[in-house]
Order: sequence, then C-alpha cells, then structure tokens
Amino acid sequence: MKALRFEQGELKLAHDIAVPRRAGEALVRMTLAGICNTDLEIVRGYAGFCGTLGHEFVGIVEESPDRSQIGTRVVGEINAGCGACSLCKSGDPRHCPQRTVLGIANRDGAFAEYLSLPHRNLLEVPGKIPDRAAVFVEPLAAACQILGQVEITPTHRVIALGDGKLGQLIARVLATTGCQLTLVGKHPDKLKLAAVAGIETALVQTGVAGGADVVVEATGSPAGMKLALDLVRPGGTIVLKSTFWEKAEIDTSRVVVNEISLIGSRCGRFAKAIELLSRGAGDLSALITQEFPLSMGIEAFRRASSPGVLKVLLLP
Amino acid sequence: MKALRFEQGELKLAHDIAVPRRAGEALVRMTLAGICNTDLEIVRGYAGFCGTLGHEFVGIVEESPDRSQIGTRVVGEINAGCGACSLCKSGDPRHCPQRTVLGIANRDGAFAEYLSLPHRNLLEVPGKIPDRAAVFVEPLAAACQILGQVEITPTHRVIALGDGKLGQLIARVLATTGCQLTLVGKHPDKLKLAAVAGIETALVQTGVAGGADVVVEATGSPAGMKLALDLVRPGGTIVLKSTFWEKAEIDTSRVVVNEISLIGSRCGRFAKAIELLSRGAGDLSALITQEFPLSMGIEAFRRASSPGVLKVLLLP
Repeated sequence: MKALRFEQGELKLAHDIAVPRRAGEALVRMTLAGICNTDLEIVRGYAGFCGTLGHEFVGIVEESPDRSQIGTRVVGEINAGCGACSLCKSGDPRHCPQRTVLGIANRDGAFAEYLSLPHRNLLEVPGKIPDRAAVFVEPLAAACQILGQVEITPTHRVIALGDGKLGQLIARVLATTGCQLTLVGKHPDKLKLAAVAGIETALVQTGVAGGADVVVEATGSPAGMKLALDLVRPGGTIVLKSTFWEKAEIDTSRVVVNEISLIGSRCGRFAKAIELLSRGAGDLSALITQEFPLSMGIEAFRRASSPGVLKVLLLP
Repeated sequence: MKALRFEQGELKLAHDIAVPRRAGEALVRMTLAGICNTDLEIVRGYAGFCGTLGHEFVGIVEESPDRSQIGTRVVGEINAGCGACSLCKSGDPRHCPQRTVLGIANRDGAFAEYLSLPHRNLLEVPGKIPDRAAVFVEPLAAACQILGQVEITPTHRVIALGDGKLGQLIARVLATTGCQLTLVGKHPDKLKLAAVAGIETALVQTGVAGGADVVVEATGSPAGMKLALDLVRPGGTIVLKSTFWEKAEIDTSRVVVNEISLIGSRCGRFAKAIELLSRGAGDLSALITQEFPLSMGIEAFRRASSPGVLKVLLLP
C-alpha cells in the first residue's frame, strides 16, 4: 500500500508498504486524515519518530476481533498501552510507559491506505457527523482535555494563545464554558474565522490586556511561553499545549514569584469530542484549507507548513 | 545606623543610614537576621534590588501605631501591599502589584539595626520559641505554602530536591504529612542532618528512583528543573521553589507529553510556621552554620556562599 513516511530524516512517499496487521488488533481502511502541527514538528526532528506519519483520521473497520465493529465508520484514540500495567488496567493507556502512539511513537500512522489499532481504541462516528468534522475528533479531544484539568467557569477571564489549527479548536471548546474568552493570534485572517464563530479575538501586534486567570498556550513556538507569562495574572494558570523540538527558555523565577501554575496537557478521550460534534458545536469546515490525495503527501506537508494555512487533509 | 546594602552592583556595609521610619508603620529593632539564598542571588543580579538586604528576622517593636505591639518580640511578613487593591482588601498583599518586599523590592530590609514594616505584617513570637528558631519563620512559612497549594497525603511518594537551607525546611514540613518522603541532595553532610531528623535521604550521585507523585524543586539552580522532570511520574506535580537570576531551559514538550503540573510557590503566611515551631517541630539549630556581627556582613555573605554552608545569621 501507499504510505507517507519519515525515515532517515526525510519525508518519503512509499508504495510498497505491507498492510499493517497486528495480532489482536483491528484493521482500518483510511477515508480521510489530517496533518497536525506535531507531524510538522516530527519532520523537524521532534520525538525521534521513524515510520508512517499521521494520527488524525476517519476510516472504515475492515477486520476486528470485535466483529460488530466491521464495516463501521470510526475514529481512533492514538495511545496503545501494554494492557498489563496499572494505568492500562484502569482503562486509560495514555500514560502507559510502554505505550506506542499512532504515527508518533513506535507505531505506523494514518497517512496510508490502512492502519492497525487495538479495537478498544476505536469509536464509532455517529451518522450525523460528516467525515470532514470527524477528522477533527483527535485534536478536538485534546482541546477538551483542558476542561478536565483546569476548572473554567463564566467568571474566569481566559486567553487562548495561538490562532492556528489547535488554537482554533481550543477557543471553540473554551467558549462552551461561557468564560470571558479572547483568542489572541498574529493572523487577521485566522482570527476572523473565530470571530465568525462568535469568539472575541485580539491581534497580538496591537497589544493585549494581561491579567488573565487562565492562558492556554497553543502557539506551537517557544516564544509563546514568554507571552503567556506576560498575560497571566499572579496566581493564575497557564495550560501548555505546544510541543516542539526546541527547548524553551523560561524565566522560572517569574513562575515562582507570581505563583503561576503551568499545566501540561496532551491527548483527551474521544467521547467528549464526539458528543460536542454531535451537538453541532460550530462548523469546523472553515478550518480546512486544502485537501490532497495521499500520493501528493509531500506537497501537502509543504502546504501545511506555509504561512496562513490551517488544516490540510489527505485522501488515500 | 549600620546597614548591609547592595548598591551599584556592590555589597557594602554602610554606617550612616537613617533609621527607617515610614508613616503609619512599625519600627522594629533587629535581634537576629538570617541570610537566604535569595539574598545571595540578589548580589548576583537577581530582582534588580538596590538597598538594605535581608528579609528573615526576629526583632523587638519599638514604635507602632498599634501601641499594644510595643516591646513585643516579633517576626514579620515581608510583602507590604498598597492597602487599596482587591487583593490587599482581602487581607493578602502577597500578590499586590504595587507591593514592596522587605529587602527584595523597593523596601530596605533586615540586615540593619532597625527596619520598618506595616504593623499588620508583624506577628508576636510565643515565648517558648527561641530567637534561633524564630529566625526561620519566614522560610518555614514558604515551605508550609506548598501544603496550601498541593494536596499531599500519606499515599503520595514525594521527593524534596535540594539539601540546602530551604530544602531542609521543606523536607521537615513535608514530613508532617506522613507522605513517603525522600530528601535528595548532593551533600552527604547536609543529608545527614535530615536523616537525624528521621527523614529518608538519597545522594543524587548514586541515582534516585523516579516516578514520584510530587517533586519539590529547591536546588536553587537551573539544573534542578531537568532533574525534577526526570523524577516525577507522568501526571505528577513539580513544585518550583528556586529563584535565581538565570533563565532555565526547559523541555516543555516533556511537560506537555507527560502532562506534568509545574506549581510556582513563594511566600507563605506566618501563622502556620509559628504553630509548627510552637509544637516543637524539629530542632532547627543544627541548620545554623555560623553567626556574624552585622559589622562583618560582607564576610558573612562570603561564608554563606561557600560550599557546605547552611544558615548564616547576622547579629546587629
């Protein structure tokens, strides 16, 4: 099958990759996949991954130990645990030390014709959610994870920092709390998309009022951390969402003196995100910049890295 | 009066400083003061402070708008707020944006014959607490602050990182929770002091088992942050206590991927620390390395910066 792979420091389109069948797992035929900033960072050297990229997808189950899944349209949680440790046994493999992660760690990903995942990782997509919304379930779940970590209520002043792919989703999820939200970014065109969705926005270049109770840092850049520290109030919380290959230089004394809490936040469970999409939570199609066939994957990555671009999708 | 001052990048002993009287405040005659790591960092350029150093002290009230305080032996909270903002009105000026901080920000400190503080900042020291314990109230309160920010119970595995002045106090405070505590440091002699107090210790050079629920970083060095990230479990908490003039380089992607919480922690309220000392919580006199008269303040600072040294006290 075709697969878009990162090997020996290079992004390559391969044509002769075996269909990935893992014992006891489900085989999913890809319908649609999305390029995430993490994919772009992996190509820059983040995470040291080697293999087929991609972790945002919708597909159809072709084989599964759970026969009731066969033929269903699914999305899939990306962490596959060992199944034996206490974390896995509690039903949440996201921090299993032996885990593989779809397209990120020791497991071939979604930029291919097929992928393999444990059948318990797959969730059926309700019929009313179209593929072009379902493909956002993974990053939307990552945005929903914030609400499980930090209490956000209508009395809180919250800044979402970063108007990119993830920042846009985060702003839409934060807005569901009724908090006093501002999406802060660098790109007037991207901010406009959020404004159309009813979200207050501010251009960072014009200066932004600080003193926020919560700042969610999703700029994807080490510089975002300094800005987050400028915008949060003493005793406030910064949620860290960006992963990148560089180390960030942080004035930790400011964190101590102002008693800031920095909360690392990664993957979320999918059920919440599916529920949000079922309730028709905002039209996400405006976030799709362009679609490419998988055979043009290298061009798709180039496009996804270009300024002003939001979600780029791949069709197998 | 005599005062040990940091001016134009230099530590100087001055002999002709006016006794500091501020309108509406109390005047306290110094009995004993302690040199803190923050004092050493200020002399290295941290905080941009200029004036009389020192914020750990015991003294006798000589003048006060509250006449009942006159003649009492006191310690004093170091943050003096504007008195008008919502934080100050709530009774906690520690994060007042207009605050001055004794010997740290826009307010002359305790390495002098007298200091001035708002009378509400002063707490009487119970008679059974000797001066050489009371002088630890300020850093002990900073250690107690952790317990107000992070829940620590007997089921938690906790690592206190750093066997210096503050790390020793933190370990003693954490031990009161009954948690599974290890004090990790570089100095066998310093670790021995904690072991004598019944605290489990480990030399960092010999390798330390990770997976802690909570790591309290009090090494006073940017390198401590990396070690803290090595020792905390996924989903765990790192409490940041060190302030230093350098910026720390942090692999924030590890914070995100492992969903670590970093909690900045600074000053605590004094009542808890006084209560702890009243209950006779451990003999702190072993933490005093040497005492100097204020007139030998420059030598005292040199001594306080030397390897193997814990608390150095100044007598006016």
